[in-house]
Amino acid sequence: MATSIICTVDVVLLTLHDGDLHAVLLRRERDPFKQAWALPGGYIDPEHDQSAWEAAARLLEQKTGIVSPYLEQLATFSGPARDPRGWSVSVAYYALVPADILPADGEAVKRVPTARLPTLPFDHGNILQTAVSRVRSKSQYSSLPVYLCGERFTLPQLQTVYEAVLGEPVNKVSFRRKVEELGMLEPIEGEMDAGKAHRPAQLYRLRKEFRRRLSVLDRGLNSRS
Amino acid sequence: MATSIICTVDVVLLTLHDGDLHAVLLRRERDPFKQAWALPGGYIDPEHDQSAWEAAARLLEQKTGIVSPYLEQLATFSGPARDPRGWSVSVAYYALVPADILPADGEAVKRVPTARLPTLPFDHGNILQTAVSRVRSKSQYSSLPVYLCGERFTLPQLQTVYEAVLGEPVNKVSFRRKVEELGMLEPIEGEMDAGKAHRPAQLYRLRKEFRRRLSVLDRGLNSRS
Repeated sequence: MATSIICTVDVVLLTLHDGDLHAVLLRRERDPFKQAWALPGGYIDPEHDQSAWEAAARLLEQKTGIVSPYLEQLATFSGPARDPRGWSVSVAYYALVPADILPADGEAVKRVPTARLPTLPFDHGNILQTAVSRVRSKSQYSSLPVYLCGERFTLPQLQTVYEAVLGEPVNKVSFRRKVEELGMLEPIEGEMDAGKAHRPAQLYRLRKEFRRRLSVLDRGLNSRS
Repeated sequence: MATSIICTVDVVLLTLHDGDLHAVLLRRERDPFKQAWALPGGYIDPEHDQSAWEAAARLLEQKTGIVSPYLEQLATFSGPARDPRGWSVSVAYYALVPADILPADGEAVKRVPTARLPTLPFDHGNILQTAVSRVRSKSQYSSLPVYLCGERFTLPQLQTVYEAVLGEPVNKVSFRRKVEELGMLEPIEGEMDAGKAHRPAQLYRLRKEFRRRLSVLDRGLNSRS
């Protein structure tokens, strides 16, 4: 067998902040790129991890305290130049979480808007852009953006979340039809959100069977025809 | 850094044979699973490969003689148990090629129908099934199946290829509309296929800009609504 290859995982953790899609970055504690802001990640530990997915879940929890119900493989990034330590393979994952479970921005963790990313070490900029386009295209025809909501939300709130992810307005009537078709929501009986609207709106939650898997449409929200 | 991890690539090479989707298997020359039929693949060579993609392209060419214009990352499979040699990461790719560029079935290479796969070593059965579902869902809204055709084909021939990949019939009128929408084909001037039809059919080829990238629709061929 040839020279050994560095095996890591990286996690693109996405959330909403001020109405825009944000990624969570951590300040690196070690070289290379010590002190730089980068994606959460680290080495696969063959002594303990049963898969790259487990490594990603473990490192995400160790470094941010977050256990995400949705943590999905994005793609694998590899080559001799992406990590100054040597030839490396990084299996990248993405997760979507509601804003309120994240630690506040500080010295070690911060949110950055995906539309205005700073320069990142390794190929983390490329990994992050790949995650944002994957999430955007998947959100066209699935329940994916619901993971950005808290446990209870109204339909207008959910529509705002979809619009933030897609980066474009969504027609209200077709949005409601799609949500119905996806069948992922249930009304919370007797729970209304008074909010600022002139009449209270029904609160919904994700049906149990969709809390860990997506509901998928065969036709997108903003399809042309 | 912890114990080293085995880094390999595997390639799911798909083609049509007798009107059905087939995968190409090679007989393994070495242990583990010496003599078993398995996916083409092997170690990433950090001395020579510039990426896992390059390793996949190199091994595919070395082992089958094929240079595929379309070789796409599928997913990465990992863990302590999938390879008896130890904790391993395999970056899997898939390729679609026309039947006529493949070597004939023999002692070292054979085609198996994806609908009736034999038991395969490692997790190659799982990798292959994952590739087939990816190709099927991607074919709903893209030009992907065209890579299974030769250089020249008629629209009825192309429709047969789509139907083989999707595993279901496609409506002729909606198929022609989708192909038009995809804009990936150009008629070959003055070239008709006499074939067995009562009148000769126009021959088409893939337009140059789509020979190495897909054309994609935002709405699938067999969408419900």
